[in-house]
Amino acid sequence: MSAPGTLRVLPLGGLGEIGKNMMVVEYEDRIVVIDTGLRFPTTDMLGIDLVLPDFSYLRDRADDIEGIVITHGHEDHLGALPWVLRELGEDKVPVVHGGPLTTAMARSKLDEHRLRATPIEQLAPGEQVELGPFGVELVHMTHSIPDSCAVALTTELGTILVTGDYKFDQTPVDGEPADMSRLAELGRDGLLLLCGDSTNVDRAGFSPSESVVGPRLEEVFSRCEGRIVVTCFASNIHRVQQVVDAAEALGRKVSLVGRSMRKNVNIGRSLGHIDVPEGMLINPREVEDFPDHKVVVISTGSQGEPLSALRRMAHHDHPRVKLHSGDTVVFSATPIPGNERAVNETIDRLYHIGCDVITPRDAPVHASGHGYAEEVKLMLNLTHPRYVLPVHGDHKRIHLHAGLAEAVGIDPDNIFKGENGLPLEIDARGARFGTAERSGMIFVDGVDIGDPADVALRDRRMLSADGIFIVVATVSSQDGSSVAPPEVIFRGVPFLEQVKGLVDEIRGAVEASLARSASDRITEIDHLQEILHDDLAAFVYDRLKRRPMVLPVVVEV
Amino acid sequence: MSAPGTLRVLPLGGLGEIGKNMMVVEYEDRIVVIDTGLRFPTTDMLGIDLVLPDFSYLRDRADDIEGIVITHGHEDHLGALPWVLRELGEDKVPVVHGGPLTTAMARSKLDEHRLRATPIEQLAPGEQVELGPFGVELVHMTHSIPDSCAVALTTELGTILVTGDYKFDQTPVDGEPADMSRLAELGRDGLLLLCGDSTNVDRAGFSPSESVVGPRLEEVFSRCEGRIVVTCFASNIHRVQQVVDAAEALGRKVSLVGRSMRKNVNIGRSLGHIDVPEGMLINPREVEDFPDHKVVVISTGSQGEPLSALRRMAHHDHPRVKLHSGDTVVFSATPIPGNERAVNETIDRLYHIGCDVITPRDAPVHASGHGYAEEVKLMLNLTHPRYVLPVHGDHKRIHLHAGLAEAVGIDPDNIFKGENGLPLEIDARGARFGTAERSGMIFVDGVDIGDPADVALRDRRMLSADGIFIVVATVSSQDGSSVAPPEVIFRGVPFLEQVKGLVDEIRGAVEASLARSASDRITEIDHLQEILHDDLAAFVYDRLKRRPMVLPVVVEV
Repeated sequence: MSAPGTLRVLPLGGLGEIGKNMMVVEYEDRIVVIDTGLRFPTTDMLGIDLVLPDFSYLRDRADDIEGIVITHGHEDHLGALPWVLRELGEDKVPVVHGGPLTTAMARSKLDEHRLRATPIEQLAPGEQVELGPFGVELVHMTHSIPDSCAVALTTELGTILVTGDYKFDQTPVDGEPADMSRLAELGRDGLLLLCGDSTNVDRAGFSPSESVVGPRLEEVFSRCEGRIVVTCFASNIHRVQQVVDAAEALGRKVSLVGRSMRKNVNIGRSLGHIDVPEGMLINPREVEDFPDHKVVVISTGSQGEPLSALRRMAHHDHPRVKLHSGDTVVFSATPIPGNERAVNETIDRLYHIGCDVITPRDAPVHASGHGYAEEVKLMLNLTHPRYVLPVHGDHKRIHLHAGLAEAVGIDPDNIFKGENGLPLEIDARGARFGTAERSGMIFVDGVDIGDPADVALRDRRMLSADGIFIVVATVSSQDGSSVAPPEVIFRGVPFLEQVKGLVDEIRGAVEASLARSASDRITEIDHLQEILHDDLAAFVYDRLKRRPMVLPVVVEV
Repeated sequence: MSAPGTLRVLPLGGLGEIGKNMMVVEYEDRIVVIDTGLRFPTTDMLGIDLVLPDFSYLRDRADDIEGIVITHGHEDHLGALPWVLRELGEDKVPVVHGGPLTTAMARSKLDEHRLRATPIEQLAPGEQVELGPFGVELVHMTHSIPDSCAVALTTELGTILVTGDYKFDQTPVDGEPADMSRLAELGRDGLLLLCGDSTNVDRAGFSPSESVVGPRLEEVFSRCEGRIVVTCFASNIHRVQQVVDAAEALGRKVSLVGRSMRKNVNIGRSLGHIDVPEGMLINPREVEDFPDHKVVVISTGSQGEPLSALRRMAHHDHPRVKLHSGDTVVFSATPIPGNERAVNETIDRLYHIGCDVITPRDAPVHASGHGYAEEVKLMLNLTHPRYVLPVHGDHKRIHLHAGLAEAVGIDPDNIFKGENGLPLEIDARGARFGTAERSGMIFVDGVDIGDPADVALRDRRMLSADGIFIVVATVSSQDGSSVAPPEVIFRGVPFLEQVKGLVDEIRGAVEASLARSASDRITEIDHLQEILHDDLAAFVYDRLKRRPMVLPVVVEV
């Protein structure tokens, strides 16, 4: 909780990147939340569907929330909204603000979760609203989804700017560069704190403009004789526009394949972010009716996702689009770290079918949505903040971002290399880190959410490594002696069928253990089970040199 | 089995790369095996330790084996030797051939497995031996481990060349470039078939020489003020030499950390591949006794391996070396696909400690051991083979290698894009693919080996996703009625504690199911268990919307 006159900025994030998924800003005990994003699980999170930042802190402070502001419509900034609203109570959040596309995507997401009570309000960039002690303003930025904004929060103490994800694209596809004039104004008026995106601080120079991708796509298309499949993020509406333009220039029809692709393009069209000429779009059902050289398919699956349209095409398992030798697949996206193997597998399947595959390694058919080092410096120089808290990065990127801030002349003492859960506290005397709050991950598994330390996940790790042995012993309630042959059941124990007679041996070991217990006059079931467990675990390890979970069940009759 | 006068070349490999781990060459029903390598499991292979190529084919033909030839000492070419010898029977393999370092590493590996019966014989490059109908000769090549060789196998029908892993390093660290003269001779005399490495065919130009790495390491070292830790593959003996040289130039001592690093350097020193000046090596115990700027640590862990020395240092968990702010860690290796996340995690921990980290992205501190596209063309032009079977690559690389072969003028009809398990058959009339043999993977799990389709692995996948429910019902052998309250046990079922009263409900469902069965006069235990399983699985899915393994045990008393 913040002391009077203290501004508190608490970064939260699901997978270690500081402040990537949520920023909690506090002043005079009132709270504005910037972004409610989620992450996708890494492969060691067995059976987990989604990863949320641990927002327990908000749960304890739900009554103090003035509103939530979403910077843009990507999952890692918006995706946790349904869970946050459901866990805090829809009535605890007075309002959710964002740009037009962002709020449209938020509403569609909340509809899927049947959450309709919280007001979702559009906020035009440049417009000011008050949320308790905060003045709130969105500043138009460029990124790989339209309608991306930075958030300026003004209190008596000063203004803080949370950049969201951004690049300084000087020639964006929609002709609307980032509002550098407003950023400069904020800088001139004296910005208190900048929380800036660090995603690409490790890349030198300026990122290429999104609009360089279009001509490159057209070049690639012009060399293709068969069908063309382009895969990109469904939310990358300007990329889809450029694919449509390139297809049009070469007289090809376009078909959208994949649920999220169709959904996002529909939202984008309704808001005027994408313009598809009349008659250009064909239904996936019609793809096979057109000559190969007359079709471009735009598909989901750029990350090799198991059930995505492209993955199914690569496995000859898509109901509408059958790829064959002579077709070309263009990956207009790079793999998110961790997805490399899935993407490579998809690419290899495509080569196996005889397709040609073009990736950003082969031709500049992708541009990142995050600014490189020079853009990060440009942001620092435009806004020259008193304090800097680099966000959206691992420790390496936070470190490199801090170095860039120092390079442009920010006092090293005013640059804060933070952690998720570590609040930065600013008052009239200065800025410093406060006491760490709870942070980390919450796992979503099916429809439930829970703690990663949950014993169930530990058990699943154990089960996944060596399987489980279950032994059911039936004993007399009189004297604990065995009254029926023990049942031995195993699942997931590797290559057990190669160990001849093991089940009989285990039965013998169970009988022996029970006999020992009976002669020791041990009849209490918990105690019997404990002894059985220890005896069997030792026996199994000795015979198999592995440690399956051993689960003895003693039934008393 | 090969027809008379037919040469048969069967590529085998563990993880999809054609012929990467084993090549079986047959003539007149006699067999020479080139390489016996293994792979490390991908993350979806739960609890699996190693992946071997399925060599069932050899098991059926064990009596026909004339010998095994190993091209070089890397795990993916040598590592399966103990399993191959054990499964085939040590007496079935008359001899294992390889260069001096390769055979030293093979012997050390077989010693660990207590396999000492098979003769391991050094074969000097250029020397000829006969193995049944085959003349065998090693041709010296350059790669990221000394003593790497191509294998020329000569029969009446002609000579085939299996390149092994290679690059054309014109300035190798030991001054011994690949034997281009012998390759050219083989070409001049008319090479029948070339099986060539495709690993880096997707990279344009020539690979940088290993010797460019030394001066770059020295430059990086000269800017470091604290301790320096260099991590690279333990088998990359020339890299270790260059780190030692750079350390010597800057007056730093060297300490070798990690078991395999010490072992490989010892073997390398004993064979004269590495030269460490007297008094330069210090024991890991002594590292903390020297000033930071006087030490270079050479460590295992370049792939982020969980128990490696570097990973432990990054987690402040290494008994000898404590890293701190001001130290520099140099990754003199690139991550093998699939290891990116583990490597990134290690790097991030190092930044968190305050270390500086240099990777091949930051400075040219690594050179690949595999030739790029121009080197593949050079090999094709030196040897101008009649037939080409690209190996060591996924479908993409095989396709690109075939394209390079076509580009240098090989008749497209004579270029064979193969698969693991698909034999290429050559006789006086020509070459063609034969009938596919069994291929794929064998899993090593602890000390046992088995089939990936093993039900245990399927079970482990199921257990890892949703856990297990075990229900023990005790029924009367007279009428099948329940005689004791059912036991309900679960492990690994997510967030179950949040579902209040579920266990009681399940008990109720069990009793109800048993009562229905009793009234239907069902008393046969298997049938009872089947009904219980179906009833409970439906009940649990209905309540939890997930599908844990459901395991009913009916005990009759």
